[in-house]
Amino acid sequence: MENLISNIKEVKVHGRTSDNRAPLTLFWTASGFECNVSGSQLWVEVEVNYTNFEPWFSYTINGDWIGRQMLTKGRYWICLFRGMNPEKIKNVHFYKDVQPLGGEENSWIQIHSLRYDGVFFQVEDKPLKIEFIGDSITSGEGLFGARQEEDWIPMFFSALRDYSYLTAKKLNADYRVFSQSGWGLYNSWDNNPNAAIPKYYKEICGFMTGKEAIALGAQEQNDFLAWQPDVIVVNLGTNDMCSFEQPEWKNPQTGETHKMHKNADGTYCKEDVALFEKAVVDFLCLLRECNPKAKIIWCFGMLSLDFQMPIVNGISNYQDIKNDQNVFYLQLPETNDNNVGSRQHPGPICHAQAADVLSAFISSHLN
Amino acid sequence: MENLISNIKEVKVHGRTSDNRAPLTLFWTASGFECNVSGSQLWVEVEVNYTNFEPWFSYTINGDWIGRQMLTKGRYWICLFRGMNPEKIKNVHFYKDVQPLGGEENSWIQIHSLRYDGVFFQVEDKPLKIEFIGDSITSGEGLFGARQEEDWIPMFFSALRDYSYLTAKKLNADYRVFSQSGWGLYNSWDNNPNAAIPKYYKEICGFMTGKEAIALGAQEQNDFLAWQPDVIVVNLGTNDMCSFEQPEWKNPQTGETHKMHKNADGTYCKEDVALFEKAVVDFLCLLRECNPKAKIIWCFGMLSLDFQMPIVNGISNYQDIKNDQNVFYLQLPETNDNNVGSRQHPGPICHAQAADVLSAFISSHLN
Amino acid sequence: MENLISNIKEVKVHGRTSDNRAPLTLFWTASGFECNVSGSQLWVEVEVNYTNFEPWFSYTINGDWIGRQMLTKGRYWICLFRGMNPEKIKNVHFYKDVQPLGGEENSWIQIHSLRYDGVFFQVEDKPLKIEFIGDSITSGEGLFGARQEEDWIPMFFSALRDYSYLTAKKLNADYRVFSQSGWGLYNSWDNNPNAAIPKYYKEICGFMTGKEAIALGAQEQNDFLAWQPDVIVVNLGTNDMCSFEQPEWKNPQTGETHKMHKNADGTYCKEDVALFEKAVVDFLCLLRECNPKAKIIWCFGMLSLDFQMPIVNGISNYQDIKNDQNVFYLQLPETNDNNVGSRQHPGPICHAQAADVLSAFISSHLN
Amino acid sequence: MENLISNIKEVKVHGRTSDNRAPLTLFWTASGFECNVSGSQLWVEVEVNYTNFEPWFSYTINGDWIGRQMLTKGRYWICLFRGMNPEKIKNVHFYKDVQPLGGEENSWIQIHSLRYDGVFFQVEDKPLKIEFIGDSITSGEGLFGARQEEDWIPMFFSALRDYSYLTAKKLNADYRVFSQSGWGLYNSWDNNPNAAIPKYYKEICGFMTGKEAIALGAQEQNDFLAWQPDVIVVNLGTNDMCSFEQPEWKNPQTGETHKMHKNADGTYCKEDVALFEKAVVDFLCLLRECNPKAKIIWCFGMLSLDFQMPIVNGISNYQDIKNDQNVFYLQLPETNDNNVGSRQHPGPICHAQAADVLSAFISSHLN
Repeated sequence: MENLISNIKEVKVHGRTSDNRAPLTLFWTASGFECNVSGSQLWVEVEVNYTNFEPWFSYTINGDWIGRQMLTKGRYWICLFRGMNPEKIKNVHFYKDVQPLGGEENSWIQIHSLRYDGVFFQVEDKPLKIEFIGDSITSGEGLFGARQEEDWIPMFFSALRDYSYLTAKKLNADYRVFSQSGWGLYNSWDNNPNAAIPKYYKEICGFMTGKEAIALGAQEQNDFLAWQPDVIVVNLGTNDMCSFEQPEWKNPQTGETHKMHKNADGTYCKEDVALFEKAVVDFLCLLRECNPKAKIIWCFGMLSLDFQMPIVNGISNYQDIKNDQNVFYLQLPETNDNNVGSRQHPGPICHAQAADVLSAFISSHLN
Repeated sequence: MENLISNIKEVKVHGRTSDNRAPLTLFWTASGFECNVSGSQLWVEVEVNYTNFEPWFSYTINGDWIGRQMLTKGRYWICLFRGMNPEKIKNVHFYKDVQPLGGEENSWIQIHSLRYDGVFFQVEDKPLKIEFIGDSITSGEGLFGARQEEDWIPMFFSALRDYSYLTAKKLNADYRVFSQSGWGLYNSWDNNPNAAIPKYYKEICGFMTGKEAIALGAQEQNDFLAWQPDVIVVNLGTNDMCSFEQPEWKNPQTGETHKMHKNADGTYCKEDVALFEKAVVDFLCLLRECNPKAKIIWCFGMLSLDFQMPIVNGISNYQDIKNDQNVFYLQLPETNDNNVGSRQHPGPICHAQAADVLSAFISSHLN
Repeated sequence: MENLISNIKEVKVHGRTSDNRAPLTLFWTASGFECNVSGSQLWVEVEVNYTNFEPWFSYTINGDWIGRQMLTKGRYWICLFRGMNPEKIKNVHFYKDVQPLGGEENSWIQIHSLRYDGVFFQVEDKPLKIEFIGDSITSGEGLFGARQEEDWIPMFFSALRDYSYLTAKKLNADYRVFSQSGWGLYNSWDNNPNAAIPKYYKEICGFMTGKEAIALGAQEQNDFLAWQPDVIVVNLGTNDMCSFEQPEWKNPQTGETHKMHKNADGTYCKEDVALFEKAVVDFLCLLRECNPKAKIIWCFGMLSLDFQMPIVNGISNYQDIKNDQNVFYLQLPETNDNNVGSRQHPGPICHAQAADVLSAFISSHLN
Repeated sequence: MENLISNIKEVKVHGRTSDNRAPLTLFWTASGFECNVSGSQLWVEVEVNYTNFEPWFSYTINGDWIGRQMLTKGRYWICLFRGMNPEKIKNVHFYKDVQPLGGEENSWIQIHSLRYDGVFFQVEDKPLKIEFIGDSITSGEGLFGARQEEDWIPMFFSALRDYSYLTAKKLNADYRVFSQSGWGLYNSWDNNPNAAIPKYYKEICGFMTGKEAIALGAQEQNDFLAWQPDVIVVNLGTNDMCSFEQPEWKNPQTGETHKMHKNADGTYCKEDVALFEKAVVDFLCLLRECNPKAKIIWCFGMLSLDFQMPIVNGISNYQDIKNDQNVFYLQLPETNDNNVGSRQHPGPICHAQAADVLSAFISSHLN
């Protein structure tokens, strides 16, 4: 039997997207759908769109990782399982395995229909909701591929080896990821002030600016009331740190330039650091406005702690202003020779270590 | 550019198969092809045949696991990578991720052509060659899937989480796998005396008896001279052990029956054990005949050591007869609550532990 | 308050010794006493005797290792604890931390009295009893000391880092150790046929032949009925293996010589191996005679598996003769660069690995 | 041969103490002496003084932990080794295994003489020097003893299982420890403002105020020039955190009281936190004054991160004032059910985890 996903109400959607289910559009890493279904087989009809970068997907059955493959362009059917005991209900979770590719105008996976011979059952919400906000680390860059790999391609990103997935699994949480490789809190690794996560936090996927993306709802306001996280994990600052070492960024349209500076003695320029610290305060205010009750944990350190003090200063300033006791600072384990992945990024071991630290911290602060 | 794989001499073939490369037929788990290739992309044209059980494949790039997916019936192209640095040479290894399915008459993957934009380079042989001979354990059954899974389907088999892959990787070895789930040394788990590995050891894939399989060379003699292992790992006996607990097997054609018996007091019947012990001697003679110089390591214990003494008795008898100093006995770590996989089989942790023990043993006996 | 240990009935004695408690004499490694006592302090009066080698002791409080020190010659008091909550009952266990030194005529620790300010309570027997029989490995040689140490002194032996202690702790078992460094099943590492464990198994500590030792009961028959193990672990064969590589041993009194031979081609001489195999059968018969219901597990491999087949042949022959289903063979993890201790012996990591394997095996065979 | 330690110039002294070597007085945990000596034996003559709490010592030979024992009152000889190869030079390191007991007026170990039959050789300084400053965590409280132990006695403290020892060993560093259980940066766990580490940092062991202690130099200024650390690890704040939960402290002499307060809503009182933050600044200034070139790493978190922000605020304020780039903040792993020791303190596993994190951080900041 084939049916449009929009007709199967028991299917649960994960990740920020519009209300449209005909088809369901997946932008973000770890976005996808989940279902409980009986029957011997399940197929999914995808439609895949991109300019240069094929997205990948992974899926789990009953919580265990089963497959991971590249999705080339087009509309076609994929078999998720066949030959299973038709009586038993299987939990199937389809994950987009790569972030939205900000440089592309039309990069997403769409889910049209399912083919099956069983019955769908409701997927209950997990008792905890977590939102992860970050950069390439949170996008799982470097979690696949040999250590020497240097190509920036979706193949080397992973949702399921990421600390976000692992943390949510340990805590039995539903989760969303809002992350862009290279982006920062105040500016990107190469000093682009537009590649700043806070500027897009209120939209579904606001930096997708193509006509088609807009038609699919990328620019719509995210419905925060519909999904309020209990915990927000912010893992930003690494690219801001890098930008002090990089040349200035020049806006190709306007010619305007921007750069974070170091002093002659190698220290960070105080005025620039102050801009960053203010951005911390502002982003915390924005997060609190959108998520009144969430515990907010700012994590840092997987790729060097060097820029730690501006983060904690920003958090401290925010706490002084708002007297908000629900904002925390947590260091995560640093990448080293034993836990590094590809592209000089934290590898699977480092992400597993981070998930241990983070999930323990969250547990102890939820009691 | 597209080219028949038979035209690309630099491609290296792994696993027992015929000399035919137009197309290349893959029967065994961990069989496949390997290439060193420059260029930005690589596609493979497969043709997939089966009755009930879709095979899966996995592949590595530069030694790191990249993807794993089901192969549905038909002839089609699959993209292995795209968008990589065209200058660099990538090592790509395509693995059949499931054993030949003995119950099927036409179960294999064929490789017709490759599409690429670079140049192929020779793949050197590794300094060590290992052949693994076994049952479901060596076929990687239970290495994917949640613990509760009970379906016997290729999805839950894995070549790359298996101790054979892990051992070969640790030792920098080329390797082949010759294994069938449920089969034994003398008879299968359910007392079928035809499902005995030694009966088919000399052919390429002798129990594939369909017309088409025969045309593809399954029944041909294996060319032992062309690939002589330095080490043979035999991991058999587990299903023979089980058969003592099972009802007799009845040949549906002839009505003949067969069964390994237990005595009234629960001990193994001596006459039946003697048959098994003789089968150990005979198989060791056969292995030595086909592989005059290989070190032969008989491994046992991943699913209980209970049937250990008949194995060591058989080895001892063989040593007495042949005065062969190159046959060894090694226990492998037992499956328990912490390392079990799906289908009550050893899981990824157990296989990793087994690879540690086995690779250390092999290393110390190669010096 | 001071009291003779012979007057304190609640004190439990561990290890083979005579019935005499005035004083209590400790011969074997891991022999000692255990008590449950309230009060703020506990002192023990020891008397220490030896020719060249100071014994050591270790002790635990409530199961946790507290101290370890050399015992120089003489009779004196040692404080085991002071300043503890007087209300609480502490479990205190005093362990001789070294084997009986076969080369000495008067080597033991005696316990005369205890000084205390609380009350003694009964120590319950643990639900399982294990006897460990072995050589230097079971005596814990090499478990203290830097890797480069080569001195054969008690300082480098340990009862509490040994696999015997660790196994008993995991299984909640009382245990005894019967072991001598350098000794074998049939002869010692240097071909001395008198340094064979089975020759002394029936006496309390039969190779202690000094006059004083005899007066203390060393030559008395061990009272097997008084302490019947549920499990016997035999870890012998390693020194027998070594003896094939060593020159002949010459009896200094009689001039008689003895040696295990290798053939010209480097293989073990069959006649000599047959003597060893017969010794396996004989020792198993002796163990069974003294311990009718014990499960007997012959362990091997911590210092090379090379001599494995004679052991399993011996076990197999014994099983054929006696039809005894309660004798088992188990490999233990081999010493390597990562787990070696001092004196080229297995170190703490190797013993911990051995205890994992052995305790899992015992558990699964007790159910 | 016996000789006063003051006559053996090759002996190296560890830890803060006076220049007097006749005898050498040991106050601090991990203080002691180290020597390189040939010969077959080494004995040490100690004199031990205390009111209620027997100190313990541990020692290593060639870097490996050998013994650990209680030292009861009096002057006597202890054998450190006997029977070793007289030709070889052994490195022997004697460690006081417990902190100076602030409540006692006469608590120390003195080393008078050594007895030996070999020759002493110079002990080279290690290429790195670290000073650890802290509370019970740095004093190794809870590193011995079963989990249920609650007695506050030296038996349950350890220098050699502490993260300070483990960190120094990993980094091949000489080190000193300056720590007091229960003490804080600004006040103790029970609000005593005199039990503040900075108040005594400039003296050898300034809170030892007994007449005899003063005669032994406890109140003398520490000679900072003589031993300048490359790295200072401060692990303070945990007891300050606790003091907010405790009743006020009352000076028994003057009747004055002191307390850190919480607000009615459970938050920390700002004025009191400000006092603590100022104490952070002041202590960093003092450390910098005494140790102009040291990297200073403030560590926190082994027993909850709850009081983290006042620490980082203090560090930040200090950096603003002094523009000092050599002060860092590092979180250490938190105690949990799997790594806890006795007395609800971090256990050996937690300290080992802390040493991993800290030594990696130090390494990466020394390059």
